[in-house]
Amino acid sequence: MMKLHILGCHSATPRSYVFPSAQVVEVDNELILIDAGEGTQMQLRKYKHKFNKIKYILISHLHGDHFFGLVGFLSSLRLLGREKELHIFAPDGLKEIIDLQFKIAQTDINYPLIFHKLTSPNSEKILDEKKFSVETIPLEHRVYTNGFLIKEKPKLRKLNTEAIKKYPEIETWAYHKLKAGEDFVSETGKIIPNEELTLPPPPPKSYAYCSDTIYKPDIIPLIKKVDLLYHESTFLEEHKELAKKTKHSTAKQAAEIAKAAQVKKLVLGHFSSRYPDEQRFKKEAMEIFPNTEIAQEGKSFEI
Amino acid sequence: MMKLHILGCHSATPRSYVFPSAQVVEVDNELILIDAGEGTQMQLRKYKHKFNKIKYILISHLHGDHFFGLVGFLSSLRLLGREKELHIFAPDGLKEIIDLQFKIAQTDINYPLIFHKLTSPNSEKILDEKKFSVETIPLEHRVYTNGFLIKEKPKLRKLNTEAIKKYPEIETWAYHKLKAGEDFVSETGKIIPNEELTLPPPPPKSYAYCSDTIYKPDIIPLIKKVDLLYHESTFLEEHKELAKKTKHSTAKQAAEIAKAAQVKKLVLGHFSSRYPDEQRFKKEAMEIFPNTEIAQEGKSFEI
Repeated sequence: MMKLHILGCHSATPRSYVFPSAQVVEVDNELILIDAGEGTQMQLRKYKHKFNKIKYILISHLHGDHFFGLVGFLSSLRLLGREKELHIFAPDGLKEIIDLQFKIAQTDINYPLIFHKLTSPNSEKILDEKKFSVETIPLEHRVYTNGFLIKEKPKLRKLNTEAIKKYPEIETWAYHKLKAGEDFVSETGKIIPNEELTLPPPPPKSYAYCSDTIYKPDIIPLIKKVDLLYHESTFLEEHKELAKKTKHSTAKQAAEIAKAAQVKKLVLGHFSSRYPDEQRFKKEAMEIFPNTEIAQEGKSFEI
Repeated sequence: MMKLHILGCHSATPRSYVFPSAQVVEVDNELILIDAGEGTQMQLRKYKHKFNKIKYILISHLHGDHFFGLVGFLSSLRLLGREKELHIFAPDGLKEIIDLQFKIAQTDINYPLIFHKLTSPNSEKILDEKKFSVETIPLEHRVYTNGFLIKEKPKLRKLNTEAIKKYPEIETWAYHKLKAGEDFVSETGKIIPNEELTLPPPPPKSYAYCSDTIYKPDIIPLIKKVDLLYHESTFLEEHKELAKKTKHSTAKQAAEIAKAAQVKKLVLGHFSSRYPDEQRFKKEAMEIFPNTEIAQEGKSFEI
């Protein structure tokens, strides 16, 4: 089970009560922080996400509305006495920005902070954990930008306890092999096929984060059939020229990507503050891709 | 008339709903921003302070809880199309931090942004406007730190319209001289003393901001008799050794400074999050200096 929690989902020039891009993805009892606009730490506190559950931070690009909240979060971790490793995946330059601020404040980071510089123009696997992996989704914006694809790994099969009861020779020590998909082989060599003893696990889930980017159909194969796609829609179609010029997408374009990639659900975000009514993004996208929702500060989506 | 508006008044490691140091002082229809902790721009919006009324920003020192919100605010001004000058008074290093972030974001500041580097160990007058002036108050903290003293200049005298009516020879062209304190001299050489024709203006107000600092009685002569003193009280007296070690003050120490300087009112701020009940700061200080209030996000004080 994966969950997406929106901390902020507006483009720059935050208005009262709206926060720039930041979200956490809950996977395998960990939190992955994706982007860290100003106020990220306040939002994490407000929505009761434990700072210490975050081990990985993914930064899409170095425009302020996606990372100005990072240094404050890192400082607070220092003051809170963090000891465990923190890994940041971000474009070149972020380490320099963070280091300079700590240097001038005459402060040392007292926990292991590891920067992983993203520079490739192609998709690459940047994390390969026991229960999930993360790949980059190369996007096209005014500066070097990546989206991120988080995929759960297949889970263990579930024991069919009713079926197992029929075979007294299956002892508990064999269970982990059954969960891993192996057939049961008794001491006498008798084989009981795995399918008879176990049930398939729930299918692994996947989540794709795509912000900021111009309309970029190249990403479709990478995000094919994901369970949830978060795609930026800074503009509405009536401003598609402006979207193109500033290398952003419209709600309609996001929906076209979602449709072509056959994703299960689309969540729109990164709204420009020029539109007071965010339901317009949803309406525009739903004409192309009905299963669309709009992001909202504090909202969670089960993936 | 001057007014202080608190945007945030807590020390680092912000909890939900509390913001680090930032405040605006309203003087002569302008806003002076003092310190700019993370979330400053959200707080300015929330409390409806117009971004464009800010021409001067004073940064006490380069610890994150006093300036991490600055770059976001400067970015937003850019996006909002600011054209007029913005002046920042801050310790050495801030320009480098801001410049690096805009360089890496491949963004140009498109309005005149002027940094004034503060380096002196002594008090200096850094602003001398028509209606107010600003002086530094050298403080002692773990890094180079200044407080700020904002003083209104004496206002023009008020016309005593009843008294003027008695002298038909006083025409309106003479009013500005009367307001400036001059006696009236008629064409025939007759002198009417100014005191007879005008009333004294309200006394000019003064405000002193002192955060962060160890207990530092040296500042007393500089802030003598100010109308309002904001003094940090990160700790309570029960942690005075910790205050000394981290170069902060206790509520009692702040009150002692206020008492010795004979200020009219004391406002405490920069509270450590270790104390859930902030009324304890007030109680401790009031034993020494009764006219004490505690700062609170969104609270305003008439000076």
